Amino acid sequence: MTVPIKSTLDPEQQRITGEALRGAVVDLIDLSLIAKQAHWNVVGTNFRSVHLALDELVTAAREFTDSAAERATAIGVSPDGRAATVAKEAGGLGFPDGWQQDTDVINAIVDNLATVIGRLRERIDATEKADPVTQDLFIEIAARLEQLHWMWQAQLTTA
Amino acid sequence: MTVPIKSTLDPEQQRITGEALRGAVVDLIDLSLIAKQAHWNVVGTNFRSVHLALDELVTAAREFTDSAAERATAIGVSPDGRAATVAKEAGGLGFPDGWQQDTDVINAIVDNLATVIGRLRERIDATEKADPVTQDLFIEIAARLEQLHWMWQAQLTTA
Amino acid sequence: MTVPIKSTLDPEQQRITGEALRGAVVDLIDLSLIAKQAHWNVVGTNFRSVHLALDELVTAAREFTDSAAERATAIGVSPDGRAATVAKEAGGLGFPDGWQQDTDVINAIVDNLATVIGRLRERIDATEKADPVTQDLFIEIAARLEQLHWMWQAQLTTA
Amino acid sequence: MTVPIKSTLDPEQQRITGEALRGAVVDLIDLSLIAKQAHWNVVGTNFRSVHLALDELVTAAREFTDSAAERATAIGVSPDGRAATVAKEAGGLGFPDGWQQDTDVINAIVDNLATVIGRLRERIDATEKADPVTQDLFIEIAARLEQLHWMWQAQLTTA
Amino acid sequence: MTVPIKSTLDPEQQRITGEALRGAVVDLIDLSLIAKQAHWNVVGTNFRSVHLALDELVTAAREFTDSAAERATAIGVSPDGRAATVAKEAGGLGFPDGWQQDTDVINAIVDNLATVIGRLRERIDATEKADPVTQDLFIEIAARLEQLHWMWQAQLTTA
Amino acid sequence: MTVPIKSTLDPEQQRITGEALRGAVVDLIDLSLIAKQAHWNVVGTNFRSVHLALDELVTAAREFTDSAAERATAIGVSPDGRAATVAKEAGGLGFPDGWQQDTDVINAIVDNLATVIGRLRERIDATEKADPVTQDLFIEIAARLEQLHWMWQAQLTTA
Amino acid sequence: MTVPIKSTLDPEQQRITGEALRGAVVDLIDLSLIAKQAHWNVVGTNFRSVHLALDELVTAAREFTDSAAERATAIGVSPDGRAATVAKEAGGLGFPDGWQQDTDVINAIVDNLATVIGRLRERIDATEKADPVTQDLFIEIAARLEQLHWMWQAQLTTA
Amino acid sequence: MTVPIKSTLDPEQQRITGEALRGAVVDLIDLSLIAKQAHWNVVGTNFRSVHLALDELVTAAREFTDSAAERATAIGVSPDGRAATVAKEAGGLGFPDGWQQDTDVINAIVDNLATVIGRLRERIDATEKADPVTQDLFIEIAARLEQLHWMWQAQLTTA
Amino acid sequence: MTVPIKSTLDPEQQRITGEALRGAVVDLIDLSLIAKQAHWNVVGTNFRSVHLALDELVTAAREFTDSAAERATAIGVSPDGRAATVAKEAGGLGFPDGWQQDTDVINAIVDNLATVIGRLRERIDATEKADPVTQDLFIEIAARLEQLHWMWQAQLTTA
Amino acid sequence: MTVPIKSTLDPEQQRITGEALRGAVVDLIDLSLIAKQAHWNVVGTNFRSVHLALDELVTAAREFTDSAAERATAIGVSPDGRAATVAKEAGGLGFPDGWQQDTDVINAIVDNLATVIGRLRERIDATEKADPVTQDLFIEIAARLEQLHWMWQAQLTTA
Amino acid sequence: MTVPIKSTLDPEQQRITGEALRGAVVDLIDLSLIAKQAHWNVVGTNFRSVHLALDELVTAAREFTDSAAERATAIGVSPDGRAATVAKEAGGLGFPDGWQQDTDVINAIVDNLATVIGRLRERIDATEKADPVTQDLFIEIAARLEQLHWMWQAQLTTA
Amino acid sequence: MTVPIKSTLDPEQQRITGEALRGAVVDLIDLSLIAKQAHWNVVGTNFRSVHLALDELVTAAREFTDSAAERATAIGVSPDGRAATVAKEAGGLGFPDGWQQDTDVINAIVDNLATVIGRLRERIDATEKADPVTQDLFIEIAARLEQLHWMWQAQLTTA
Repeated sequence: MTVPIKSTLDPEQQRITGEALRGAVVDLIDLSLIAKQAHWNVVGTNFRSVHLALDELVTAAREFTDSAAERATAIGVSPDGRAATVAKEAGGLGFPDGWQQDTDVINAIVDNLATVIGRLRERIDATEKADPVTQDLFIEIAARLEQLHWMWQAQLTTA
Repeated sequence: MTVPIKSTLDPEQQRITGEALRGAVVDLIDLSLIAKQAHWNVVGTNFRSVHLALDELVTAAREFTDSAAERATAIGVSPDGRAATVAKEAGGLGFPDGWQQDTDVINAIVDNLATVIGRLRERIDATEKADPVTQDLFIEIAARLEQLHWMWQAQLTTA
Repeated sequence: MTVPIKSTLDPEQQRITGEALRGAVVDLIDLSLIAKQAHWNVVGTNFRSVHLALDELVTAAREFTDSAAERATAIGVSPDGRAATVAKEAGGLGFPDGWQQDTDVINAIVDNLATVIGRLRERIDATEKADPVTQDLFIEIAARLEQLHWMWQAQLTTA
Repeated sequence: MTVPIKSTLDPEQQRITGEALRGAVVDLIDLSLIAKQAHWNVVGTNFRSVHLALDELVTAAREFTDSAAERATAIGVSPDGRAATVAKEAGGLGFPDGWQQDTDVINAIVDNLATVIGRLRERIDATEKADPVTQDLFIEIAARLEQLHWMWQAQLTTA
Repeated sequence: MTVPIKSTLDPEQQRITGEALRGAVVDLIDLSLIAKQAHWNVVGTNFRSVHLALDELVTAAREFTDSAAERATAIGVSPDGRAATVAKEAGGLGFPDGWQQDTDVINAIVDNLATVIGRLRERIDATEKADPVTQDLFIEIAARLEQLHWMWQAQLTTA
Repeated sequence: MTVPIKSTLDPEQQRITGEALRGAVVDLIDLSLIAKQAHWNVVGTNFRSVHLALDELVTAAREFTDSAAERATAIGVSPDGRAATVAKEAGGLGFPDGWQQDTDVINAIVDNLATVIGRLRERIDATEKADPVTQDLFIEIAARLEQLHWMWQAQLTTA
Repeated sequence: MTVPIKSTLDPEQQRITGEALRGAVVDLIDLSLIAKQAHWNVVGTNFRSVHLALDELVTAAREFTDSAAERATAIGVSPDGRAATVAKEAGGLGFPDGWQQDTDVINAIVDNLATVIGRLRERIDATEKADPVTQDLFIEIAARLEQLHWMWQAQLTTA
Repeated sequence: MTVPIKSTLDPEQQRITGEALRGAVVDLIDLSLIAKQAHWNVVGTNFRSVHLALDELVTAAREFTDSAAERATAIGVSPDGRAATVAKEAGGLGFPDGWQQDTDVINAIVDNLATVIGRLRERIDATEKADPVTQDLFIEIAARLEQLHWMWQAQLTTA
Repeated sequence: MTVPIKSTLDPEQQRITGEALRGAVVDLIDLSLIAKQAHWNVVGTNFRSVHLALDELVTAAREFTDSAAERATAIGVSPDGRAATVAKEAGGLGFPDGWQQDTDVINAIVDNLATVIGRLRERIDATEKADPVTQDLFIEIAARLEQLHWMWQAQLTTA
Repeated sequence: MTVPIKSTLDPEQQRITGEALRGAVVDLIDLSLIAKQAHWNVVGTNFRSVHLALDELVTAAREFTDSAAERATAIGVSPDGRAATVAKEAGGLGFPDGWQQDTDVINAIVDNLATVIGRLRERIDATEKADPVTQDLFIEIAARLEQLHWMWQAQLTTA
Repeated sequence: MTVPIKSTLDPEQQRITGEALRGAVVDLIDLSLIAKQAHWNVVGTNFRSVHLALDELVTAAREFTDSAAERATAIGVSPDGRAATVAKEAGGLGFPDGWQQDTDVINAIVDNLATVIGRLRERIDATEKADPVTQDLFIEIAARLEQLHWMWQAQLTTA
Repeated sequence: MTVPIKSTLDPEQQRITGEALRGAVVDLIDLSLIAKQAHWNVVGTNFRSVHLALDELVTAAREFTDSAAERATAIGVSPDGRAATVAKEAGGLGFPDGWQQDTDVINAIVDNLATVIGRLRERIDATEKADPVTQDLFIEIAARLEQLHWMWQAQLTTA
């Protein structure tokens, strides 16, 4: 099969950027599935707050998935977001099965966010030279995920 | 761990209905990931029509996933929609990797829809006695997926 | 000509359900044309109420026509809503030509609704075994038409 | 029965204008039923485009029907849009039954539009003296139908 | 005082068109004040229908007033819509003071509409040569007022 | 049980104002239930107008109930809007059971409104010194109920 | 008094269905008044979540009340939702007077929901033969109330 | 003619309040006609600002007219807003005919507003005892007109 | 190349109308580019008013461009709105480069509008016989441009 | 500098009212800055509820600031809402720096609200004679702040 | 003429950035005119998809034109978007006159996009040091145009 | 007190970035208070334009304040936006008390904007290495403030 979408990047820029974007797509789908899983299985006195906040996280993760995947196509790289690929390659920390206490949910989300942000910051560095357009997208995603990281932490901590 | 959500069904009704709902959740998440994968990787003269129609399918699949998962919680059964579970248990036919011709995409979507609908019709029968509320939800999902099944077929056939 | 849309029903289920749906399409188009005819030709002190209420009936009838016709396509049956077919096969009671007094309009609408509902209740029975998805659609249509049947009657009667 | 709505036109103006409006009502209802019929029965690779474009045509035809019928009432002439009247008097070319290939649908719509526009242009001439208000409505309808005539043709032709 | 707005019409066209527009402004303000007066003072079993329909008439009359007055300015003619001018020059039939029975209100509105439409039809003729742009506006106003004329009549009459 | 919400009023002001607000809450819930009862049970030629007007009254009564109840909480007084309390303490005139003629409905609503307004005017006097904030709320409620009182009367009377 | 609304059900179907619907109307009004009572009187650290969630319950209960009452009218049965009727016949568990701790509110709502759902499930069985249209409405109400039942429980329990 | 709308005020309260409201209706209609007149006839470098600000004044004046007139009806007093009444009884300062310089327009609006506000402040005093509900409406109108009075002045003055 | 879109006009009507429409397209694109140029380059104390008013002109010019171009296609004539064509054939007066004083901008816009309107009035005459549908579009465009012509003049002049 | 805005109040009324309004402006800006400060710095298990509720308070405080300041201008008094003025003259209790526990935030907001409300109630008394229009604004502000005072307290207390 | 807008950049930064922005303005206007030209002149089986997609491109190009031109003004550089300037300086590949086949249109748009993107990438490099604010705008434009570049390519290619 | 929010930056990056963000928060609050102060106190012939433009500046400044403050929290730094802090640390030029002439207001806003932009450009440099996410936010703020800087200048200058 020939490559049907021509890139405006040179082959090396395309290789680096494409790898970063494909990795981000997988991490973000995993994050959205974890957040939905938590949305359904959370119990505890803060159920309502956590249940609603998880759907905001799902919305953010889904929008960023689409942005990253369509950026990959825009540089001529096919994204892969199928369940098996996500199950095998996602860098997150996962989520236990069954009903979960609200405080456990908050801890799990904070840790998963920290992991995804860490990997994203590496990709910001990796794409600085290769493609400033993609780097700009990663910066935007990091800004929002770090805001959510604060908000989820704020529910756990004491001043 | 104790079971935190009490059901208004008896244990046997709950077992049958819960199994049907957990299966539907997995099939529908898989369908939404396949449709997104196709949305990004389709090429060909009908790119725009197919690209847009796939997002309508994603929206439908996501809304039905949420309805089925929240119906499971409503009868005291924990749903499981994590990537690894979906990768292992989904009943769909999958989707090849890389760029795909528009006609191949249409065929793949028609076949995946037919498979998911077939499994859903079995669940409509299975829940008739066990829980008419859940059966009603499956009927609603089937109605919409069969409508989409026609629309995707209509793009392939000749009168 | 080959049949281009494959059904998820078996041939006998398809035959029964298809016949019921094609009949409903014709009845509902006829009802929408009668209601529009009345909308334009009504006169009398209750003109404004009746004129507006008729447009609500038109809207309902048109939406249900589309639902029934697209359900037919979804099970592989071609719907027929052309003027000649409607003129020949509709089960309603018709509507006289020329200007009509408001009370006569109300009586004519109540009687047409009663007839269409009666035919619909037979189709609910006929499709119970053949296709619960179609039956569900007929139940939804009946619920709305019976609500309108009450509202139109309420304008006529004395407590 | 006495004529309940007084006209601001003289009897001859009213006769000419009323005849033109009653004819337009019938043609436009027929056009809307043909477009709906095609909307449901079209198949082929351009299914989605054609299916959507047909609903735009339905919307236009329905709005113009209402405008023409209410213009008739405004000049004291009772419009007649019942199924039997439409079946007998409409000037369109009709539409075959059963599933239809997308290219056949496009041809049929182009030809029906051309016929309706031709009759409308005659009515524009006929009402110039009799009633400039009605003529203005026919000009507005012709403008939109001719725009649609171009758009449907554009799908058929080669530059 | 010099005339500050230059016209794109010649002096004679401007004189004829300006006179027609100034007359229409006065008639339409008067109509809107009468309709508001009726809106407040109507009583009777059809209070609610008539009360609401009168506000639709007010809305229409106000929008047309603005269109006519701004068309006058556009051709360099100053419109005059002050209370004293309206009281002295309006061509309508007026409205009695105090509470009014709903049937009396309907009759008064039908008669005032007929008078205003009659004067408007003369202005359509008068501006045909002088300014087709202004004539087009008068045709649009007449179309809407004649539609309202039918609707108000329809509440009075028997078929 | 201790009183959990501190008031910014002194005890005597709080006692007078609290009593007035608790009475208003009960009257307004009763009014909303009566209006809904009438909304469902009205028959007669003015069915549609009365049916719709009753829902506007329900909306108004519900919003004022909420305002009065939340004003009570704001001054540290617990409101009581349970069915048994309303059944025992409401000052309205009640409503007969079963289907009701439209003219009877109008009379019943006018009389209930007059009663509720009378009690409200007493509360406006009672709270003038005790709490101008609460008085202001009662004035707002009276303004709207007196407007509705006129509109319902207007349907009954002859000029 | 004669019965003004004719039913499309036979007398026995009408009797069974009417009884079920009148019972549901009373239960749902009671539920909406209890939820409003709780909305105003709740205190505690989860005040805001509980306060908002109660208004969602009020909205749901009010909409279902209207659907059940209008379904009763549609089959020719007069619904009764007056305060005294609700106080005497509602099947819920009631709600204590005065300020209430948030956890007590949650328990009271969960128990009231369970009671109302239990009675509704009996009505689903009772109407299966008598009227599938009414049964479908009860299934829809049960689906939503069971979803809310889960959400309210989830705030109480530990995983 | 009998008085069809009963008042909740005693005859003396009704007389005082009715007189104040009828006067306000006339002043506010006059103000709205003056503002429209200015809207059309203003010229000068601040045309656009003044033209837009005048329409905000028209909107305010029209809404307050309706509130005052419907308050009159609510206390059983028939309002009179016909052109001749306004021309004869309005307390404003009028507006010259023909095109007007923007600064002259601003001065005329400021002076008209000051006059109307002055008369309104007298009505606030006059209705304090007679009807606090009407007084509250006058206070609301004064608040908005005084805000506009500042904004129009601000365009004239130097700091 | 063959002509792909058939016209409902005869060849001579098509030639006259097509020429008029192609000319209008070019004039209107030019007007929109001039208005945008002015929007960016205006300075002076009336900057904000002029800056905003210019964008309203851009919006109007763009919508009319589209209407005129699509009317050309509807009669089978290919429109040409490319930069080089506009630069060569537009009938406007142009606009100087660099920053411009607000009063100079107003003068330039008034003059360009007058020129475009003048050419449009010739096209209204030219198409009267050839195509009343196109003439109607030109009348609508002239009405709006003449309104804007007044508004822009009003900023310059003294009463 | 001369005073550029003339007042409709006499000098003494203006002095009293102006002082009250200037004080309210300062208190409300301070309240909005405190609420924003808390919005950013709150931590604890109720983070999400408190974070959202604080933004509602900010919105309320900002709107009332604008109302009070524009009321000052309307009576010819210049408001002063600069940072230094607020820091020096605000009557609130302030807010500590750095991260704050959610319960501490709630206590601080309740106390600040109580202080601002207390000062506002004094201003309601002070302006009763001087200017009922301003008093009405203060009553409206107090009504909303007292509602918020209850809601914030409700999160702290036990029944 | 003096330069009226002061820049926050130094002269050399301003020169480099201004040149890049002026070039982008011209390229983007040209692109929007080409896309409109294609929107009107496209024919072929994919007419509807291409016709709609072209308007999305027009919208994007117009918004970016405005952003780039207003960024130029923000750094004190006058933008030039007049027709003659665009015709002379635009870097795109142009577009043939007359009707165009849909596949030819797609090829022409892909090539024009590639050219504009190439020039934009040079401007991203050129402004990195001179003005990061402008560079950020170019990155945003490139991201969107490269997404469109993929979508237009996807219609052409085979997997 | 322990630091409750963990940062994804190292301590030195956090220190630099936190300082820059805290400074920006203070500058932006000050700017919003100055703009509101001017919004209330401006007088002169351009009152309306300036009054409206100031509210756009307030809106921008408030949104950026929130973005900067929440970015500080996201990196674990507590923002401080209390009145006393703003009064002491803001870098703007302040604003005089009392009524202000419109031209003076424009000059004061231009100068304050220039000062805030200058400090922001330093923060863009300071955070380039420390945190590209924060730098991106500063670039976005600068872009908008520089656009406003142009628009405010444009009102002052002569071409």
